[in-house]
Amino acid sequence: MVDILHRVGVKSPTPDNVYDALTTVEGLAGWWTDDTKGSGEAGGVLEFRFPPGGFDMEVVELRPAERVTWRVVDGPEEWVGTTVEWDLRQDGDYTIVLFTHRGWREPVEFMHHCSTKWGSYLMSLKSLVETGEGAPSPRDVQISDWH
Amino acid sequence: MVDILHRVGVKSPTPDNVYDALTTVEGLAGWWTDDTKGSGEAGGVLEFRFPPGGFDMEVVELRPAERVTWRVVDGPEEWVGTTVEWDLRQDGDYTIVLFTHRGWREPVEFMHHCSTKWGSYLMSLKSLVETGEGAPSPRDVQISDWH
Repeated sequence: MVDILHRVGVKSPTPDNVYDALTTVEGLAGWWTDDTKGSGEAGGVLEFRFPPGGFDMEVVELRPAERVTWRVVDGPEEWVGTTVEWDLRQDGDYTIVLFTHRGWREPVEFMHHCSTKWGSYLMSLKSLVETGEGAPSPRDVQISDWH
Repeated sequence: MVDILHRVGVKSPTPDNVYDALTTVEGLAGWWTDDTKGSGEAGGVLEFRFPPGGFDMEVVELRPAERVTWRVVDGPEEWVGTTVEWDLRQDGDYTIVLFTHRGWREPVEFMHHCSTKWGSYLMSLKSLVETGEGAPSPRDVQISDWH
Protein backbone atom coordinates (compact mmCIF):
# COMPACT_ATOMS: atom_id res chain seq x y z
CA MET A 1 0.00 0.00 0.00
CA VAL A 2 1.42 3.34 -1.00
CA ASP A 3 0.16 6.85 -0.39
CA ILE A 4 0.20 10.22 -2.10
CA LEU A 5 1.21 12.98 0.32
CA HIS A 6 1.04 16.75 -0.01
CA ARG A 7 1.20 19.86 2.17
CA VAL A 8 0.33 23.45 1.38
CA GLY A 9 -0.05 26.53 3.56
CA VAL A 10 -3.02 28.71 2.73
CA LYS A 11 -2.83 32.32 3.88
CA SER A 12 -6.05 32.66 5.86
CA PRO A 13 -6.90 33.84 9.37
CA THR A 14 -8.95 30.70 10.09
CA PRO A 15 -9.23 27.12 8.77
CA ASP A 16 -12.94 27.69 8.16
CA ASN A 17 -12.32 28.99 4.64
CA VAL A 18 -10.42 25.89 3.57
CA TYR A 19 -12.93 23.67 5.35
CA ASP A 20 -15.77 25.32 3.40
CA ALA A 21 -13.85 24.79 0.16
CA LEU A 22 -13.66 21.05 0.98
CA THR A 23 -17.20 20.50 2.16
CA THR A 24 -19.51 22.55 -0.07
CA VAL A 25 -20.33 21.93 -3.72
CA GLU A 26 -19.66 25.59 -4.50
CA GLY A 27 -16.27 25.49 -2.77
CA LEU A 28 -15.20 22.23 -4.42
CA ALA A 29 -16.29 23.53 -7.83
CA GLY A 30 -14.03 26.51 -7.24
CA TRP A 31 -10.78 24.56 -7.18
CA TRP A 32 -11.24 20.94 -8.35
CA THR A 33 -13.84 20.71 -11.07
CA ASP A 34 -16.64 22.93 -12.32
CA ASP A 35 -18.71 19.76 -12.62
CA THR A 36 -19.24 18.95 -8.93
CA LYS A 37 -22.56 17.66 -7.65
CA GLY A 38 -23.94 15.80 -4.66
CA SER A 39 -23.74 16.30 -0.92
CA GLY A 40 -20.75 17.28 1.18
CA GLU A 41 -22.52 16.24 4.41
CA ALA A 42 -21.31 13.25 6.42
CA GLY A 43 -22.64 10.13 4.71
CA GLY A 44 -23.27 12.03 1.49
CA VAL A 45 -21.72 11.30 -1.85
CA LEU A 46 -19.89 13.93 -3.90
CA GLU A 47 -19.73 13.44 -7.66
CA PHE A 48 -16.71 14.98 -9.38
CA ARG A 49 -16.57 14.89 -13.18
CA PHE A 50 -13.74 15.76 -15.55
CA PRO A 51 -13.54 15.51 -19.35
CA PRO A 52 -11.97 12.01 -19.16
CA GLY A 53 -14.20 10.63 -16.36
CA GLY A 54 -14.68 11.19 -12.68
CA PHE A 55 -14.87 10.09 -9.08
CA ASP A 56 -17.66 9.51 -6.57
CA MET A 57 -16.57 10.14 -3.01
CA GLU A 58 -18.47 9.16 0.10
CA VAL A 59 -17.94 11.66 2.89
CA VAL A 60 -16.94 9.39 5.78
CA GLU A 61 -15.70 11.87 8.35
CA LEU A 62 -16.20 15.57 9.00
CA ARG A 63 -14.66 17.47 11.89
CA PRO A 64 -15.30 21.18 11.32
CA ALA A 65 -12.13 23.15 10.63
CA GLU A 66 -10.00 20.06 11.37
CA ARG A 67 -10.54 17.04 9.20
CA VAL A 68 -12.36 15.74 6.14
CA THR A 69 -12.20 12.15 4.90
CA TRP A 70 -13.63 10.76 1.70
CA ARG A 71 -13.77 7.18 0.45
CA VAL A 72 -13.74 6.60 -3.28
CA VAL A 73 -16.85 4.59 -4.14
CA ASP A 74 -16.73 4.89 -7.94
CA GLY A 75 -14.12 5.89 -10.50
CA PRO A 76 -10.96 4.38 -11.98
CA GLU A 77 -10.31 0.92 -10.57
CA GLU A 78 -7.01 2.10 -9.03
CA TRP A 79 -8.98 4.64 -6.99
CA VAL A 80 -11.95 2.61 -5.79
CA GLY A 81 -11.60 1.80 -2.09
CA THR A 82 -8.82 4.34 -1.49
CA THR A 83 -9.34 7.21 0.96
CA VAL A 84 -8.60 10.91 0.63
CA GLU A 85 -7.81 12.60 3.93
CA TRP A 86 -7.54 16.31 4.62
CA ASP A 87 -6.12 17.53 7.95
CA LEU A 88 -6.23 21.23 8.73
CA ARG A 89 -4.58 23.26 11.45
CA GLN A 90 -3.94 26.93 11.96
CA ASP A 91 -0.33 28.10 12.22
CA GLY A 92 -0.17 31.87 12.56
CA ASP A 93 -1.40 33.49 9.35
CA TYR A 94 -1.61 30.15 7.54
CA THR A 95 -3.99 27.23 7.43
CA ILE A 96 -1.78 24.18 7.00
CA VAL A 97 -3.36 21.51 4.80
CA LEU A 98 -1.98 17.99 5.13
CA PHE A 99 -3.28 15.78 2.35
CA THR A 100 -3.07 11.99 2.07
CA HIS A 101 -4.54 9.84 -0.70
CA ARG A 102 -4.17 6.54 1.03
CA GLY A 103 -4.41 2.90 0.01
CA TRP A 104 -3.11 2.65 -3.55
CA ARG A 105 -2.32 -1.00 -4.20
CA GLU A 106 0.68 -0.41 -6.48
CA PRO A 107 2.83 2.59 -7.41
CA VAL A 108 1.65 2.47 -11.03
CA GLU A 109 2.38 5.21 -13.55
CA PHE A 110 -1.16 6.54 -13.07
CA MET A 111 -0.34 7.06 -9.39
CA HIS A 112 2.68 9.18 -10.35
CA HIS A 113 0.38 11.24 -12.56
CA CYS A 114 -2.28 11.62 -9.89
CA SER A 115 0.31 12.71 -7.33
CA THR A 116 1.51 15.60 -9.48
CA LYS A 117 -2.06 16.46 -10.41
CA TRP A 118 -3.18 16.55 -6.75
CA GLY A 119 -0.30 18.91 -5.97
CA SER A 120 -1.42 21.18 -8.75
CA TYR A 121 -5.04 21.11 -7.54
CA LEU A 122 -3.91 21.90 -3.98
CA MET A 123 -2.29 25.03 -5.40
CA SER A 124 -5.67 25.75 -7.01
CA LEU A 125 -7.35 25.36 -3.60
CA LYS A 126 -4.76 27.70 -2.06
CA SER A 127 -5.39 30.26 -4.79
CA LEU A 128 -9.16 30.01 -4.42
CA VAL A 129 -9.04 30.77 -0.69
CA GLU A 130 -6.34 33.44 -0.97
CA THR A 131 -7.57 35.27 -4.07
CA GLY A 132 -11.11 34.09 -4.72
CA GLU A 133 -10.06 32.35 -7.92
CA GLY A 134 -8.88 28.76 -8.37
CA ALA A 135 -8.06 26.77 -11.49
CA PRO A 136 -10.62 23.94 -11.52
CA SER A 137 -11.14 21.57 -14.43
CA PRO A 138 -11.52 22.29 -17.32
CA ARG A 139 -9.29 25.34 -16.68
CA ASP A 140 -6.76 23.30 -14.71
CA VAL A 141 -3.01 23.51 -15.14
CA GLN A 142 -1.85 21.02 -17.77
CA ILE A 143 0.97 18.84 -16.46
CA SER A 144 1.23 16.41 -19.39
CA ASP A 145 -0.65 14.82 -22.26
CA TRP A 146 -2.34 12.24 -19.98
CA HIS A 147 -5.95 11.57 -20.95
CA MET B 1 9.76 3.00 3.51
CA VAL B 2 7.61 5.42 1.57
CA ASP B 3 8.19 7.19 -1.72
CA ILE B 4 7.32 10.46 -3.40
CA LEU B 5 6.05 9.91 -6.94
CA HIS B 6 5.44 12.35 -9.77
CA ARG B 7 4.92 12.36 -13.52
CA VAL B 8 4.98 15.20 -16.00
CA GLY B 9 4.95 15.30 -19.80
CA VAL B 10 7.34 17.80 -21.35
CA LYS B 11 6.56 18.88 -24.89
CA SER B 12 9.84 18.16 -26.65
CA PRO B 13 10.79 16.19 -29.78
CA THR B 14 13.47 14.23 -27.89
CA PRO B 15 14.30 13.26 -24.29
CA ASP B 16 17.77 14.82 -24.74
CA ASN B 17 16.57 18.24 -23.63
CA VAL B 18 15.19 16.94 -20.33
CA TYR B 19 18.26 14.75 -19.87
CA ASP B 20 20.52 17.79 -20.30
CA ALA B 21 18.42 19.71 -17.76
CA LEU B 22 19.03 16.88 -15.25
CA THR B 23 22.73 16.31 -15.87
CA THR B 24 24.37 19.70 -16.41
CA VAL B 25 24.93 22.43 -13.82
CA GLU B 26 23.49 25.00 -16.22
CA GLY B 27 20.36 22.90 -16.82
CA LEU B 28 19.79 22.15 -13.13
CA ALA B 29 20.26 25.83 -12.25
CA GLY B 30 17.53 26.64 -14.75
CA TRP B 31 14.75 24.85 -12.90
CA TRP B 32 15.79 23.77 -9.37
CA THR B 33 18.11 26.34 -7.83
CA ASP B 34 20.31 29.15 -9.14
CA ASP B 35 22.90 27.98 -6.63
CA THR B 36 23.93 24.67 -8.23
CA LYS B 37 27.56 23.56 -8.31
CA GLY B 38 29.58 20.37 -8.73
CA SER B 39 29.64 17.64 -11.33
CA GLY B 40 26.74 15.92 -13.07
CA GLU B 41 28.98 13.11 -14.34
CA ALA B 42 28.58 9.56 -13.04
CA GLY B 43 30.31 9.40 -9.67
CA GLY B 44 30.26 13.17 -9.31
CA VAL B 45 28.53 15.14 -6.58
CA LEU B 46 26.05 17.91 -7.28
CA GLU B 47 25.61 20.61 -4.63
CA PHE B 48 22.20 22.27 -4.54
CA ARG B 49 21.72 25.22 -2.19
CA PHE B 50 18.55 27.06 -1.19
CA PRO B 51 18.01 29.89 1.29
CA PRO B 52 17.20 27.45 4.14
CA GLY B 53 19.92 24.88 3.34
CA GLY B 54 20.63 22.33 0.66
CA PHE B 55 21.38 18.87 -0.64
CA ASP B 56 24.48 17.10 -1.94
CA MET B 57 23.62 14.39 -4.45
CA GLU B 58 25.98 11.73 -5.71
CA VAL B 59 25.26 10.81 -9.33
CA VAL B 60 25.00 7.03 -9.12
CA GLU B 61 23.56 6.15 -12.52
CA LEU B 62 23.37 7.85 -15.90
CA ARG B 63 21.79 6.34 -18.97
CA PRO B 64 21.65 9.04 -21.65
CA ALA B 65 18.10 10.09 -22.52
CA GLU B 66 16.70 7.31 -20.29
CA ARG B 67 17.61 7.42 -16.64
CA VAL B 68 19.34 9.49 -13.96
CA THR B 69 19.75 8.39 -10.33
CA TRP B 70 21.10 10.43 -7.45
CA ARG B 71 21.82 9.39 -3.89
CA VAL B 72 21.53 12.03 -1.18
CA VAL B 73 24.88 12.17 0.61
CA ASP B 74 24.32 15.35 2.64
CA GLY B 75 21.33 17.46 3.64
CA PRO B 76 18.39 17.17 6.03
CA GLU B 77 18.55 13.94 8.01
CA GLU B 78 15.27 12.74 6.49
CA TRP B 79 16.89 12.95 3.04
CA VAL B 80 20.32 11.41 3.66
CA GLY B 81 20.49 7.93 2.14
CA THR B 82 17.35 8.36 0.03
CA THR B 83 17.53 8.17 -3.76
CA VAL B 84 16.05 10.38 -6.45
CA GLU B 85 15.28 8.57 -9.69
CA TRP B 86 14.37 10.09 -13.04
CA ASP B 87 13.08 7.86 -15.84
CA LEU B 88 12.53 9.36 -19.27
CA ARG B 89 10.81 8.03 -22.35
CA GLN B 90 9.52 9.58 -25.51
CA ASP B 91 5.76 9.35 -26.24
CA GLY B 92 4.93 11.21 -29.43
CA ASP B 93 5.49 14.93 -28.93
CA TYR B 94 6.17 14.51 -25.20
CA THR B 95 9.06 13.38 -23.05
CA ILE B 96 7.46 11.55 -20.15
CA VAL B 97 9.29 12.10 -16.86
CA LEU B 98 8.66 9.54 -14.11
CA PHE B 99 10.08 10.76 -10.83
CA THR B 100 10.58 8.77 -7.62
CA HIS B 101 12.16 10.04 -4.40
CA ARG B 102 12.63 6.68 -2.76
CA GLY B 103 13.46 5.48 0.72
CA TRP B 104 11.89 7.92 3.17
CA ARG B 105 11.77 6.20 6.53
CA GLU B 106 8.53 7.79 7.75
CA PRO B 107 5.72 9.81 6.13
CA VAL B 108 6.55 12.87 8.24
CA GLU B 109 5.04 16.30 7.63
CA PHE B 110 8.29 17.38 5.94
CA MET B 111 7.76 14.58 3.42
CA HIS B 112 4.29 15.95 2.61
CA HIS B 113 5.92 19.36 2.04
CA CYS B 114 8.71 17.94 -0.12
CA SER B 115 6.21 16.01 -2.25
CA THR B 116 4.28 19.15 -3.17
CA LYS B 117 7.50 21.09 -3.66
CA TRP B 118 8.93 18.43 -6.00
CA GLY B 119 5.73 18.59 -8.08
CA SER B 120 6.11 22.33 -8.35
CA TYR B 121 9.78 22.02 -9.36
CA LEU B 122 8.87 19.42 -11.99
CA MET B 123 6.56 22.03 -13.48
CA SER B 124 9.54 24.38 -13.46
CA LEU B 125 11.60 21.76 -15.33
CA LYS B 126 8.77 21.38 -17.86
CA SER B 127 8.61 25.14 -18.32
CA LEU B 128 12.39 25.43 -18.74
CA VAL B 129 12.47 22.87 -21.54
CA GLU B 130 9.29 24.09 -23.24
CA THR B 131 9.84 27.85 -22.98
CA GLY B 132 13.47 28.37 -22.00
CA GLU B 133 12.45 29.73 -18.59
CA GLY B 134 11.96 27.82 -15.36
CA ALA B 135 11.25 29.00 -11.83
CA PRO B 136 14.30 27.90 -9.82
CA SER B 137 14.96 28.99 -6.25
CA PRO B 138 14.93 31.76 -5.14
CA ARG B 139 12.22 32.56 -7.72
CA ASP B 140 10.34 29.32 -7.01
CA VAL B 141 6.59 29.06 -6.56
CA GLN B 142 5.69 29.51 -2.89
CA ILE B 143 3.49 26.68 -1.65
CA SER B 144 3.41 27.57 2.06
CA ASP B 145 5.31 29.33 4.83
CA TRP B 146 7.68 26.37 5.35
CA HIS B 147 11.25 27.45 6.11
